[in-house]
Amino acid sequence: MDISTIIGLVSGTIFVIISIIWGEGRVPLFLNWPSVMIVFGGIIAALFVSYPIPKLIEGFKTGKHVFSKQEIDPTDVISKINELALSARKEGLLALEEIAQGMEDPFLQKGILLIVDGTDAELLRSILETEIAFVENRHKDNQKFWESIAELGPAWGMIGTLIGLIIMLDNLSDPSTLGPKMAVALITTFYGSMIANLVATPISTKLKLKSSEEILHKQVMVEGLLSIQAGENPRVIEEKLKAFLSPGTRKVFDDKSKTEE
Amino acid sequence: MDISTIIGLVSGTIFVIISIIWGEGRVPLFLNWPSVMIVFGGIIAALFVSYPIPKLIEGFKTGKHVFSKQEIDPTDVISKINELALSARKEGLLALEEIAQGMEDPFLQKGILLIVDGTDAELLRSILETEIAFVENRHKDNQKFWESIAELGPAWGMIGTLIGLIIMLDNLSDPSTLGPKMAVALITTFYGSMIANLVATPISTKLKLKSSEEILHKQVMVEGLLSIQAGENPRVIEEKLKAFLSPGTRKVFDDKSKTEE
Amino acid sequence: MDISTIIGLVSGTIFVIISIIWGEGRVPLFLNWPSVMIVFGGIIAALFVSYPIPKLIEGFKTGKHVFSKQEIDPTDVISKINELALSARKEGLLALEEIAQGMEDPFLQKGILLIVDGTDAELLRSILETEIAFVENRHKDNQKFWESIAELGPAWGMIGTLIGLIIMLDNLSDPSTLGPKMAVALITTFYGSMIANLVATPISTKLKLKSSEEILHKQVMVEGLLSIQAGENPRVIEEKLKAFLSPGTRKVFDDKSKTEE
Amino acid sequence: MDISTIIGLVSGTIFVIISIIWGEGRVPLFLNWPSVMIVFGGIIAALFVSYPIPKLIEGFKTGKHVFSKQEIDPTDVISKINELALSARKEGLLALEEIAQGMEDPFLQKGILLIVDGTDAELLRSILETEIAFVENRHKDNQKFWESIAELGPAWGMIGTLIGLIIMLDNLSDPSTLGPKMAVALITTFYGSMIANLVATPISTKLKLKSSEEILHKQVMVEGLLSIQAGENPRVIEEKLKAFLSPGTRKVFDDKSKTEE
Amino acid sequence: MDISTIIGLVSGTIFVIISIIWGEGRVPLFLNWPSVMIVFGGIIAALFVSYPIPKLIEGFKTGKHVFSKQEIDPTDVISKINELALSARKEGLLALEEIAQGMEDPFLQKGILLIVDGTDAELLRSILETEIAFVENRHKDNQKFWESIAELGPAWGMIGTLIGLIIMLDNLSDPSTLGPKMAVALITTFYGSMIANLVATPISTKLKLKSSEEILHKQVMVEGLLSIQAGENPRVIEEKLKAFLSPGTRKVFDDKSKTEE
Repeated sequence: MDISTIIGLVSGTIFVIISIIWGEGRVPLFLNWPSVMIVFGGIIAALFVSYPIPKLIEGFKTGKHVFSKQEIDPTDVISKINELALSARKEGLLALEEIAQGMEDPFLQKGILLIVDGTDAELLRSILETEIAFVENRHKDNQKFWESIAELGPAWGMIGTLIGLIIMLDNLSDPSTLGPKMAVALITTFYGSMIANLVATPISTKLKLKSSEEILHKQVMVEGLLSIQAGENPRVIEEKLKAFLSPGTRKVFDDKSKTEE
Repeated sequence: MDISTIIGLVSGTIFVIISIIWGEGRVPLFLNWPSVMIVFGGIIAALFVSYPIPKLIEGFKTGKHVFSKQEIDPTDVISKINELALSARKEGLLALEEIAQGMEDPFLQKGILLIVDGTDAELLRSILETEIAFVENRHKDNQKFWESIAELGPAWGMIGTLIGLIIMLDNLSDPSTLGPKMAVALITTFYGSMIANLVATPISTKLKLKSSEEILHKQVMVEGLLSIQAGENPRVIEEKLKAFLSPGTRKVFDDKSKTEE
Repeated sequence: MDISTIIGLVSGTIFVIISIIWGEGRVPLFLNWPSVMIVFGGIIAALFVSYPIPKLIEGFKTGKHVFSKQEIDPTDVISKINELALSARKEGLLALEEIAQGMEDPFLQKGILLIVDGTDAELLRSILETEIAFVENRHKDNQKFWESIAELGPAWGMIGTLIGLIIMLDNLSDPSTLGPKMAVALITTFYGSMIANLVATPISTKLKLKSSEEILHKQVMVEGLLSIQAGENPRVIEEKLKAFLSPGTRKVFDDKSKTEE
Repeated sequence: MDISTIIGLVSGTIFVIISIIWGEGRVPLFLNWPSVMIVFGGIIAALFVSYPIPKLIEGFKTGKHVFSKQEIDPTDVISKINELALSARKEGLLALEEIAQGMEDPFLQKGILLIVDGTDAELLRSILETEIAFVENRHKDNQKFWESIAELGPAWGMIGTLIGLIIMLDNLSDPSTLGPKMAVALITTFYGSMIANLVATPISTKLKLKSSEEILHKQVMVEGLLSIQAGENPRVIEEKLKAFLSPGTRKVFDDKSKTEE
Repeated sequence: MDISTIIGLVSGTIFVIISIIWGEGRVPLFLNWPSVMIVFGGIIAALFVSYPIPKLIEGFKTGKHVFSKQEIDPTDVISKINELALSARKEGLLALEEIAQGMEDPFLQKGILLIVDGTDAELLRSILETEIAFVENRHKDNQKFWESIAELGPAWGMIGTLIGLIIMLDNLSDPSTLGPKMAVALITTFYGSMIANLVATPISTKLKLKSSEEILHKQVMVEGLLSIQAGENPRVIEEKLKAFLSPGTRKVFDDKSKTEE
């Protein structure tokens, strides 16, 4: 569980509720079904026009990634590569096949099998980088999906407010109802802003971060696999891969390595 | 038929109508011919200044692509390439000419004929990639056409509202008509927002998706054709091209391959 | 004459006039000299700060390109290159000099003369591509000039409205004049929007299209000239250059070629 | 201490306070706890959704960099490289190891140790440039963090104002309280603008400047280290590295060099 | 003197003054010291947070470039290169040293001295292009400085208006003063728009143009210097460099060359 996403969504909602109560407003006023319908309905209708149905489902599904903690740890990747490099040195490249069988990461596994099959270094890099490029593209599509929602939210909020305003202005017979009617008209704009600024834009930002982490892991793997194939010294490989770590993570990694020794 | 586009446009319109009725508004109020004229007329006038007439017609025509289902399936492309690779291996490159005659895809056909003609690999790649680049450019022009509409919609909506407001303010003699007049003035802004957020932006998004799918198919073809020309092993070719598939599609493809075996 | 530009500008103006009359407004109200002065004056003043005078004049002059029909036809370019390739094959590269003398296009002419002078292929490509790059840069500067106007229009429209509002609010003695005064204040915003959305943005879009067409022609010429210099087969050259055409144009070209045969 | 940041934040706050007093406003009116809660609470809630907790803490921590003066001076870097080059010339590359021990800069130190270890030039450049690329990426993430705040500020300011307006409009019973209530509703928009335009955007700009300075130093180091490894003449190295300095700094550097001679 | 900048600033101010008088407004109303303080004070405070003090001073100083006429003429550069090429041909590369001494342009001078020192072509290009890249970066920083002001202007204008509005709404006791107070509140928005649209954005645009001209001159110099070093024919060099000129300038250059012959 990525606890920060939950904290953010819950606390944001609570802040809004407190703000309403503190301002002596009625909370139920802010729960207006016609407003819910036009804003959410409008967004979903626009998404249907924007995306073929499978992409639409995939887009919503990626939303759940912001709740899950990324399991992979960059230092783990380096340790694993290091292990592989040591095995390859001692027992030859073919010995990697067995290790690959027990691996969880399909990308690393595929890379090892390609090495064992004797794939040429150039081709190996090209196959793995093509795969990374496509993973990145799919991630970008999903980030754009949530950015679309972030743009559609305020837009449909404004459409809802316009509908409310036009109806209100067309029918000014009873001025005493003007205020409450306008209050209701503004609720759609409020919904649109909340969707954009508490949900969709933040989700898109978090997806971007998770994506760049995953891509980084895969790049570390590619560099590591190519070094293993080239028969480089495990120590040099480790040094090379550590360039991919942030100074903080690198320190953690170095401490861990020392403890293990 | 791309059913999602229809669902989106129809449901979006229905949501707006329900919203009007639910808000106790008169639906006919929202059908205002002068407003239709200034918003749609203004957009089309601006498009005439922006685009030469043939481009304008082409731009509108591409709109229909969002209603049609893309027929090509990436796994089909790989199967076809695989078949070609097997034929080339067994019967030589010249045997491909006959197969090419029966092909529907002009791009793949052209590529095969260039191979049969003994075109140099470098030149083959350059010709096919130039073609892809130009296809991509034409697609981008069409996406921009719909993005232009998405920007012109709210802009002409605002121009219409300004005209209505100026006339209304210039003639404040009867305050009781103020409300309805302002209601009408706002309808153009409503139209502009609907055009942008239910039609033009979503169409542009969908065109972008369809374009990147088509480009992907063509890239798979280019890689496949070059591999065939180089006389690579059909199994290696298949492995290489599978890097272009998403994990989901790849699984579908692998399952299909197994069933066929 | 690029008839679409005229149609757009004229019809856009007519739509606005009809909209005013239909809304029971007085057309002369929308012709307000102080408003004209502050919006147009402000835009021009800002352009003077933005551009040195020669660039300013050049920027405005390029506006006339949107009224002129691009004469060059991509299929013509290919035919001409083909002709040159045939002459070069039959009579040698030197025979091209005479043909170059009668040419209208200075770019193609320059390229041929460089070939006749025996310029090295690398250098030939570099000289011609540098020239294309600079043509493209000059075009981009001119597109930006009109984009500047498109941004300055609404900005100075708002400045005019602010001036009007401030004066009006400062002097609320006679409330009956409030409406008409505010109407007048809004006219500058109306002008600014019209300049941006009927004139400047569309002109910039059309300039971009015309530019990319011209650049495309020049790129076709460069590829053709290099192929001629390399002594490639005229048929291969034609096939290569056809990759630059859109499928529609290519079909027109093929039909024309057949008729000519 | 980067005094300019302090000057800016303090003077900006003072200008606002003077402006309130000069306008005969009550300063305490602008300190409204419910407004503080919704704007700051909303921003922080959205940041929790956007960033995993460690990134969130890191993002806020980088804010302190805008208060600290960058210690490294580009001319110092060149002097240091020059010294290293002289030592390497006189006593051989191995003599650099000892010098590296006493170095403060971990990047330069790492580079020297890699040279001493006899790392291949290609690999040396690749390791160091990978490290620079990752430093740059981390810096960009932090700039984006503050840009996120700059966008969330006005957005949550508007959400606060909407909540206030909706409550006010829903309850128009006492028109005399309308003004003060609307005043309070606008305070959140005021907070949002202040956060964006006095704090978050400026901090992001300063982080960008500091980052590009640091990257520049690192690039100078890489060029210098590679030149040292290649055994280039110290004078040529100095001339080469001076290209990285601005004319002003270069003059300072030349003057200093002369004084030292 | 770049007369166009003066014309623009003066005429823009005059247009605004005429607009005020024509609208029967009082010009002194638009000179409001509290408004001046909050807008200019706020912008400067934000710039202090954004930039370290030396960068801040440099940023403002570059503003004066928009008043100075660029002295260098591209045709002059080509003539000078031509001269150098002739001398090099006749008297050898070493003869260039003397000519370099009398040169005003430090970039060209440096290039010649590097040639005379026998610098390798690869290194020569790399040193000069690094220098160009850094000049370009410094120019971009300065353009961004003025773009920052263009964004801060309207933002602080809005902050000023918000302060004015909040004070006004909080104190609605005397409705007759409502208009004038709101008029004053809007003056900061007016200032912000003027700063952005008459001063800062246009200055940034002009700086961009001046920068690209200077970069172009430097690129012509690099190409010329490399050709001289390679001992190319002066006529070929001239032809090559002319590709960098716009058709208009090229014609002027050709006419001048003829007159000189």
